[in-house]
Amino acid sequence: MVINVIGYPNKKTIPTPPSKVIHDGYTGRGMTLENDLNISNTYYLETNRALIYKKPTPIQVVKVDYPSRNAAKIVEAYYKVPSTTDYNGIYRGKPIDFEAKETKSKTSFPFKSIHPHQIDHLKRVALHKGIGFFIIRFTSYEETYLLDASSIITLYEQGNKKSIAYQRVKEIGLLIPQGLTPRLRYLDIVDTLYFKEEVK
Amino acid sequence: MVINVIGYPNKKTIPTPPSKVIHDGYTGRGMTLENDLNISNTYYLETNRALIYKKPTPIQVVKVDYPSRNAAKIVEAYYKVPSTTDYNGIYRGKPIDFEAKETKSKTSFPFKSIHPHQIDHLKRVALHKGIGFFIIRFTSYEETYLLDASSIITLYEQGNKKSIAYQRVKEIGLLIPQGLTPRLRYLDIVDTLYFKEEVK
Repeated sequence: MVINVIGYPNKKTIPTPPSKVIHDGYTGRGMTLENDLNISNTYYLETNRALIYKKPTPIQVVKVDYPSRNAAKIVEAYYKVPSTTDYNGIYRGKPIDFEAKETKSKTSFPFKSIHPHQIDHLKRVALHKGIGFFIIRFTSYEETYLLDASSIITLYEQGNKKSIAYQRVKEIGLLIPQGLTPRLRYLDIVDTLYFKEEVK
Repeated sequence: MVINVIGYPNKKTIPTPPSKVIHDGYTGRGMTLENDLNISNTYYLETNRALIYKKPTPIQVVKVDYPSRNAAKIVEAYYKVPSTTDYNGIYRGKPIDFEAKETKSKTSFPFKSIHPHQIDHLKRVALHKGIGFFIIRFTSYEETYLLDASSIITLYEQGNKKSIAYQRVKEIGLLIPQGLTPRLRYLDIVDTLYFKEEVK
């Protein structure tokens, strides 16, 4: 039995899958930023330090097959453009919201990997007094930076630049310490940036 | 070209699709709770009252087809059991997290529609000082209640009951006013329950 769940058979713009999806399950050296964050978030969760999750990738389901009574097999679906950021949760009673991106470039971080929706979303996070930021990794240097959302939004909206220079990221961002557990100690940077009073 | 993205060809337990997925896009009378919440959340978003989203349904992608260079068609995927609640966001600077369920029963709300993961998740929300609750609709009465997570967790964990009686829901929950915009004024109930000082 094939059920046409949602009637979008002739969807015109089909977003390409996020490259990270293809890297799912990859292990070993050169671990993706997504994997590092998932492992770190699990550690933070288990040690009760924070409650931060990656949201599922939004997928538009078109057709579902029911090969047996209790089984549902999706046989036609498409990746959707995300309307929000990938990660959110709670830390020290505050809402946390961020987007994580990696680039192979040695010289700059390209803005084209940020969706306009995500910029709008992070503006709203600020409006509602949440903590919003970007985590950007330069894979060539194995360096990962945390940058407050407002600084990226300002640069993004100037409109005359297509990227942020690596040097500029180093100036306005803070390098995230890397270790074994958690792999990315990004909450230490969040403490420095947003909870100075609490961690004195 | 078919790429086996994640090697789960023989997945043993295939969760059935959430019934709400089949109702996606349904309009008119008898609107689903999910649709009512989405419309209300859009209204709250546009009026800058809150930033609350439904998370995408988690889907395990197994095979992706590339019919052309920039198109990705998912041809094999399965619904996953959600590890968290469906809705979260920010209201009055606080983290908000809730699960929404509807039942056709006239006498009780069955616990089997709540996943154990979701109970664990809402306990963590409380631990990290977020605001967690359930929104439960009795479709027979067209009544929708908001119940603090702690009261449901206590009843759920007693273990000797498989459901909460409708009368009990009326006692421990608060009826959400329904209107045109927003359809479900659930933030008014959130104000009453969690922001007494602020809305005096």
